[in-house]
Amino acid sequence: MVDSKPLPSWNDGAAKSAILDFVARVTKGGGPGFAPAAERIAVFDNDGTLCCEQPLQTQFFFAFNRVKDLAGKDPAMAERQPFKAVLEQDYNTLFGLGKQALYELAYATHAGITDEEFIDVARGWLATAKHPKIGRLFKQCVYGPQIELLAYLRDNGFKTYIVSAGGADFMRAFADEAYGVPREQVIGSSVKLRYDGGGERVSLSKLSELNLFNDREAKALSIGLHIGRRPLLAFGNSDGDLPMMRYAKSGSGARLALLLHHDDAEREAAYDREFRLSPLVEALDKAEAYSFTVVSMKRDWNIVF
Amino acid sequence: MVDSKPLPSWNDGAAKSAILDFVARVTKGGGPGFAPAAERIAVFDNDGTLCCEQPLQTQFFFAFNRVKDLAGKDPAMAERQPFKAVLEQDYNTLFGLGKQALYELAYATHAGITDEEFIDVARGWLATAKHPKIGRLFKQCVYGPQIELLAYLRDNGFKTYIVSAGGADFMRAFADEAYGVPREQVIGSSVKLRYDGGGERVSLSKLSELNLFNDREAKALSIGLHIGRRPLLAFGNSDGDLPMMRYAKSGSGARLALLLHHDDAEREAAYDREFRLSPLVEALDKAEAYSFTVVSMKRDWNIVF
Repeated sequence: MVDSKPLPSWNDGAAKSAILDFVARVTKGGGPGFAPAAERIAVFDNDGTLCCEQPLQTQFFFAFNRVKDLAGKDPAMAERQPFKAVLEQDYNTLFGLGKQALYELAYATHAGITDEEFIDVARGWLATAKHPKIGRLFKQCVYGPQIELLAYLRDNGFKTYIVSAGGADFMRAFADEAYGVPREQVIGSSVKLRYDGGGERVSLSKLSELNLFNDREAKALSIGLHIGRRPLLAFGNSDGDLPMMRYAKSGSGARLALLLHHDDAEREAAYDREFRLSPLVEALDKAEAYSFTVVSMKRDWNIVF
Repeated sequence: MVDSKPLPSWNDGAAKSAILDFVARVTKGGGPGFAPAAERIAVFDNDGTLCCEQPLQTQFFFAFNRVKDLAGKDPAMAERQPFKAVLEQDYNTLFGLGKQALYELAYATHAGITDEEFIDVARGWLATAKHPKIGRLFKQCVYGPQIELLAYLRDNGFKTYIVSAGGADFMRAFADEAYGVPREQVIGSSVKLRYDGGGERVSLSKLSELNLFNDREAKALSIGLHIGRRPLLAFGNSDGDLPMMRYAKSGSGARLALLLHHDDAEREAAYDREFRLSPLVEALDKAEAYSFTVVSMKRDWNIVF
């Protein structure tokens, strides 16, 4: 059952038309863009594409809070970097410590427990943690127009995936509730797991060792590994999404690659190339060359949250 | 819509009862075993569990045929092991060459092309290739009672996955048609992929480098990576499936781990611990200790293919 007036939070314009035309082509039996249901795969970046990533991605706030919890039980932690900078809320120092320090932060806050325990910890935090500026629960700092788009695609036979550089297990703690995307359709960064079969209850432990940092080319490769099929649609907002957008867009038949441009300082934030954690440069400069559809938050959405 | 007489190809007995009881518990709202739809994940091994693996797994026949094709274009290949043994159909020599030789066989026949090209090659072979003893197309050498079980689980809200040591992309070439399992629900062994973004059309190339051999503990770890949720049901037929069966079975609530025992020399094959390529020893010896439900092909199935 398809709504006759879909995407009410999207203003009429080139972006909305491109989406509606694409879906019409994919679903029109016998038409040149028709794709059977099995091929209808849509992939979405998470941070900055489905939810607010300013001033920092949600997962950083989770990690900072978890450092506080862990340092409460292990005071020596507070003396060591990168935890000291976290506890002092000295983010310039923190992000100046380099990549390895950020991995240490990630391992300390996301590993050393089983995947099932971790999801419980993350859900516990997400149940009450609020965004410092927006004032809503983090899990509700999601973009209304995108929730509509995800549902509209599913109504038209698409399977919707998240393909993000964020931690897969962290996103799995809220993706179903926030986006209607089940855990098994969340592809993200991950640590290695260990099989613990010594006791009666088998479990999988999250280790302090990187399995995959799922950004840039890795996003396209993860789609190959997990899905095994070139998506028809990809939606991103930074250069980290460029390879998967090109991968989706350069297949044959009806294709759509969408790029969200944060140009709405009044309702959310205006940023692109200067955002240290996930800049948007090449994907915007070459949007036309790659036939990407640029979505302006300011122009194309009549609501944000 | 649930059939009132499900699983007609399964004989009445302990195995069929265990399946029906399990599904009734999982789906009974308010009952102690009830699981919401999101938790209804069922994982199946492929070779020997869903399809015939005797005298060899289907993928070996594919690889042998592809060696023939490739050696036709590159005669020097015929002089080198392991290809020489393949072309001479000298399987004792082939399997005596050791693990590295088998990987070389796998890389030569499964890599060096894009994932999309590979699926086309595999589908081309599967369209006409027949099992040497059974005389049916390989993709039809699948067990009727298992096809019924997969459909019955899906009718009851389960998502059905294949979790196999076989190559994921090879299985993806026929899993939808043979089992009703879409590509993205196939988890298997894989080679590393390379992102080729130099031209207009982006593609993913399969490299001659192992990403994962998806057997034993790796099966449980892959479930953690791809699905992020402990399955309620696991079905296997060898020690390679033991860890994922224990993983599924040792969760809380209603759980079922099934072990297919090939004891039907008349209709298929009778083998367990002596099968070199995928032996069944510990999983059978400890089936009772682990509360596995042993399925006898001879006793529990009234048809095989």
